[in-house]
Amino acid sequence: MDYQTILEKVSKAVAPLTGEGKVADYIPALANVNPNKYAVCIDSIDGNLYAVGDADERFSLQSITKVFSLAMCLSIKGEELWTRVGKEPSGTAFNSLVQLEVEGMPRNPFINAGAIVLADVLLTSFPDPEARFLSFVRELCGSDTVDYNLEVAHSERETGYLNAAIVNLLKYHKKIERDVEEVLAFYFKMCSIEMNCKELARAFLAFANHCRFDYAGVSLTLSQVKRINSVMQTCGFYDEAGEFSYLVGLPGKSGVGGGIAALYPRRYSVAVWSPRLNSKGNSVMGMKTLELLTTETMESIF
Amino acid sequence: MDYQTILEKVSKAVAPLTGEGKVADYIPALANVNPNKYAVCIDSIDGNLYAVGDADERFSLQSITKVFSLAMCLSIKGEELWTRVGKEPSGTAFNSLVQLEVEGMPRNPFINAGAIVLADVLLTSFPDPEARFLSFVRELCGSDTVDYNLEVAHSERETGYLNAAIVNLLKYHKKIERDVEEVLAFYFKMCSIEMNCKELARAFLAFANHCRFDYAGVSLTLSQVKRINSVMQTCGFYDEAGEFSYLVGLPGKSGVGGGIAALYPRRYSVAVWSPRLNSKGNSVMGMKTLELLTTETMESIF
Amino acid sequence: MDYQTILEKVSKAVAPLTGEGKVADYIPALANVNPNKYAVCIDSIDGNLYAVGDADERFSLQSITKVFSLAMCLSIKGEELWTRVGKEPSGTAFNSLVQLEVEGMPRNPFINAGAIVLADVLLTSFPDPEARFLSFVRELCGSDTVDYNLEVAHSERETGYLNAAIVNLLKYHKKIERDVEEVLAFYFKMCSIEMNCKELARAFLAFANHCRFDYAGVSLTLSQVKRINSVMQTCGFYDEAGEFSYLVGLPGKSGVGGGIAALYPRRYSVAVWSPRLNSKGNSVMGMKTLELLTTETMESIF
Amino acid sequence: MDYQTILEKVSKAVAPLTGEGKVADYIPALANVNPNKYAVCIDSIDGNLYAVGDADERFSLQSITKVFSLAMCLSIKGEELWTRVGKEPSGTAFNSLVQLEVEGMPRNPFINAGAIVLADVLLTSFPDPEARFLSFVRELCGSDTVDYNLEVAHSERETGYLNAAIVNLLKYHKKIERDVEEVLAFYFKMCSIEMNCKELARAFLAFANHCRFDYAGVSLTLSQVKRINSVMQTCGFYDEAGEFSYLVGLPGKSGVGGGIAALYPRRYSVAVWSPRLNSKGNSVMGMKTLELLTTETMESIF
Repeated sequence: MDYQTILEKVSKAVAPLTGEGKVADYIPALANVNPNKYAVCIDSIDGNLYAVGDADERFSLQSITKVFSLAMCLSIKGEELWTRVGKEPSGTAFNSLVQLEVEGMPRNPFINAGAIVLADVLLTSFPDPEARFLSFVRELCGSDTVDYNLEVAHSERETGYLNAAIVNLLKYHKKIERDVEEVLAFYFKMCSIEMNCKELARAFLAFANHCRFDYAGVSLTLSQVKRINSVMQTCGFYDEAGEFSYLVGLPGKSGVGGGIAALYPRRYSVAVWSPRLNSKGNSVMGMKTLELLTTETMESIF
Repeated sequence: MDYQTILEKVSKAVAPLTGEGKVADYIPALANVNPNKYAVCIDSIDGNLYAVGDADERFSLQSITKVFSLAMCLSIKGEELWTRVGKEPSGTAFNSLVQLEVEGMPRNPFINAGAIVLADVLLTSFPDPEARFLSFVRELCGSDTVDYNLEVAHSERETGYLNAAIVNLLKYHKKIERDVEEVLAFYFKMCSIEMNCKELARAFLAFANHCRFDYAGVSLTLSQVKRINSVMQTCGFYDEAGEFSYLVGLPGKSGVGGGIAALYPRRYSVAVWSPRLNSKGNSVMGMKTLELLTTETMESIF
Repeated sequence: MDYQTILEKVSKAVAPLTGEGKVADYIPALANVNPNKYAVCIDSIDGNLYAVGDADERFSLQSITKVFSLAMCLSIKGEELWTRVGKEPSGTAFNSLVQLEVEGMPRNPFINAGAIVLADVLLTSFPDPEARFLSFVRELCGSDTVDYNLEVAHSERETGYLNAAIVNLLKYHKKIERDVEEVLAFYFKMCSIEMNCKELARAFLAFANHCRFDYAGVSLTLSQVKRINSVMQTCGFYDEAGEFSYLVGLPGKSGVGGGIAALYPRRYSVAVWSPRLNSKGNSVMGMKTLELLTTETMESIF
Repeated sequence: MDYQTILEKVSKAVAPLTGEGKVADYIPALANVNPNKYAVCIDSIDGNLYAVGDADERFSLQSITKVFSLAMCLSIKGEELWTRVGKEPSGTAFNSLVQLEVEGMPRNPFINAGAIVLADVLLTSFPDPEARFLSFVRELCGSDTVDYNLEVAHSERETGYLNAAIVNLLKYHKKIERDVEEVLAFYFKMCSIEMNCKELARAFLAFANHCRFDYAGVSLTLSQVKRINSVMQTCGFYDEAGEFSYLVGLPGKSGVGGGIAALYPRRYSVAVWSPRLNSKGNSVMGMKTLELLTTETMESIF
């Protein structure tokens, strides 16, 4: 069975879940999305693209962009990055302040506190971090029209009290160098990037293909790419990382916009989108789609 | 370079670490081991065995045995097992009671609380759980002389106040059915099993070879085997799971006896032993050996 | 209005609460008590006794006895006692293991962990601690027939998994010297002492009258007596210490048997009993009785 | 021995502690105080004032002002206030976010989170809260020149990342109505009020004298005054409330400016000032002065 057939079979199998879960509604820009949207797309290293559903419609990547900022920071700082942020699973909800208060350093780069530290690293590394980040992301996904959504970014800032608490706590612990408002604004801006499933799959192919990783000046060794995959595997799904690893068996990253990107090393990347989330903040149909995909193909990293 | 050459190269490279770390000394039976012992062994699915060092000398497996009890429990209970124990990384030290008190269920089967629940599952499933467990383990590793070390088991029970606290807390939360002393005695007995690196590598080959898993009546589907690997990946190294995954990139499990077993799916399993532990309870030379092995071979799951 | 008139007025005012709350039912010996029992008794330093209700019927003192063991331990160890147990409010439920795990020492002598340390102190101080403790308590309350209830003590031990967890955790942290079973048995035995409200009020009068404190060889300075009162004030009501202090304004101690003893320094002691407990483990009618008493008399320490 | 003689004796006895502890240095305005300053003052309800040392020199009240805002809020809201903030001891450091995150409501009005809620209550109750608060405080202490120190207030805001984290977290939990910056600015302004020991003792006399409490429109019943004293007793000294209650036995409140105010109901109030703090944030010489005072007088609430 080829991937197109499998994707069609899987998308039919998950269809009954369409009404389950709840769209992220903490900002209007996310709440107003059509909750029944669904797309899945595989980008294969042999050059083939397989897609089902609304795969040309862009959505808010949100936390998925943390993979891109991690790649950029690792390219700049190398292993020294891990003196600023840990790489252990958090074991608690993605926005927990408890761990931060007790340990004084974010547990990993994919919880909000960790990604805020990444934003600070980028701000202190470039005179034009917003342009640099966008260039990198555009080259990764192969599209010049991918962009920040300023309405989403501003909307997040206006109601983002929890993240404001986190950035202030980080500043108190001397874990960020720049001004708290500047860091927060850049963090929300990165999260606001929008792609469609085809673009997202393409962006993640770079982490799967074991070829030279060099995009808009961001270059990584193969070892570094693999290590980013490892961080996705252990920390990519908030406090459901174990569940995703167990059911799907691929490194990946989810976002509250309802997207999930994952990859099967040396074979393909896959992006899925469905806005309704489970109680842990991960796309209900997205999780199930990927579980059925690896069950069907018997292709997982384990 | 073949695996034998690589193992010899790696074992030389890690030799300078010989004095680093500290042997587990909470019971005499573990404290009295020669701290300078070192062995590494690869068992390949193509039938070849590669070994360096004291690969015929047995040591206490301790927490590594939790992989065997998980396999046995999953074979008995199937997915229903996860109503008794979680599968998320703990994010805290391996013996933390905090998480257990707050959530009322062990976070995963590889923290002590989780493995104690597995012991209870086995006790309630068989009239002769000790004999059953031993038969299974012996078939897995292909040796009839592998056995419990009763001196170690008794010694653990005498000083095992933290585990006694855990089992009582589990009983309070109605998470175990059997008597607390019975559960604790069986838990310590399972941990006391001893193997050498050749036997240990062989035992883990069953989780790597994607062949039929059926040993002494314990049978698992391929999907179940992969899922056990996933739990090893996210939870196998106490609160250093992220670090091991990052540096080594293979599913594995460590024990305070200084052993680590890991596997590269569809290729080989590997066992390493060196008694001196880092502050997280994992073998210093064992961790480094595996890191260098996957760096040298460029073979990791990512 | 004299105290007898006030007690009668108050007891009528609280009568409508008779059905509220829930009798402690974790052991049969406590669950079988008549839930509608009610008594209140004031013992005045001028020699008068005022009582309403079932004031001659004995009930299980449970945690109230921790005041007696604190008095005995302070008499033996003096200020050095506070190297074994803290004296700060716990801020968490009375049986929390979290605080103990994080700080390694019980927060105060009135949480279970702290009282278990007191039991260990008594066991290591006397060849005959059970007889000594009973003599002290009998002299305090002026009754030779007050005694341990062995059925209650054994019943507690059989189901006391949480306390067994605590004592094992304390042993792990090297905070108790004696055998865990011995400490636990003595702890439950002390808790099992029974008194009626007249006896209980008399026992607490010794902490109110600012006279010489010397009972069965247990002697305290006035300063020590006042300090015990202070510990009652800040820690005497589990995680409702602030509430009791706010509403009642007297130092006191409650127990899950439904009793509360309190005192107004240099004036009187008061004991109240009603078995139904609120969600924090304190007697519903007992709390209200004391609140109304101090409102009526306008006599509180503030 | 009269109070003047006692104060002189006590101030000599504590003199050897002069160099112990560390002045709060997180803002320059506090760090620049002369660390050797010392004053103690008793204001008696019979109209006498007793003072030793620098009792006419003003210092920053900081957290002591939380007693004034509690009085004002309780006067406005009555018992309904406790739906916005708890009244239980926190059991953790005064600035802990952990408790707030887990429980969603500040534990008591004297931890920073609780006092920030009080600031929000005042902001929503008056069109001119700053003027109102100042009028109240001036009438309490009987001085028209007592004022905010704007330099201190601004300095706090510039570096107050932890409090900014707290106010954002409260806003996230919908526990404050007003804008986070507005609340924070008012909170810091209240903390910046300065008094000398004579003024501070006078201000606290209102909580001791059991007379009519009615100052600049803020009126409280005697029962409410007593309840404020109770909250001071159980929560007034960060995570050293038990220690202060144990050693001193009076309700009181401390501040990081090195001041402590306490009171002996129906007799006197006492204010002490010495800038060097212990590790818990309380004045070293202040604590000792009050301990010796109550030891000398044998006058405590217990």
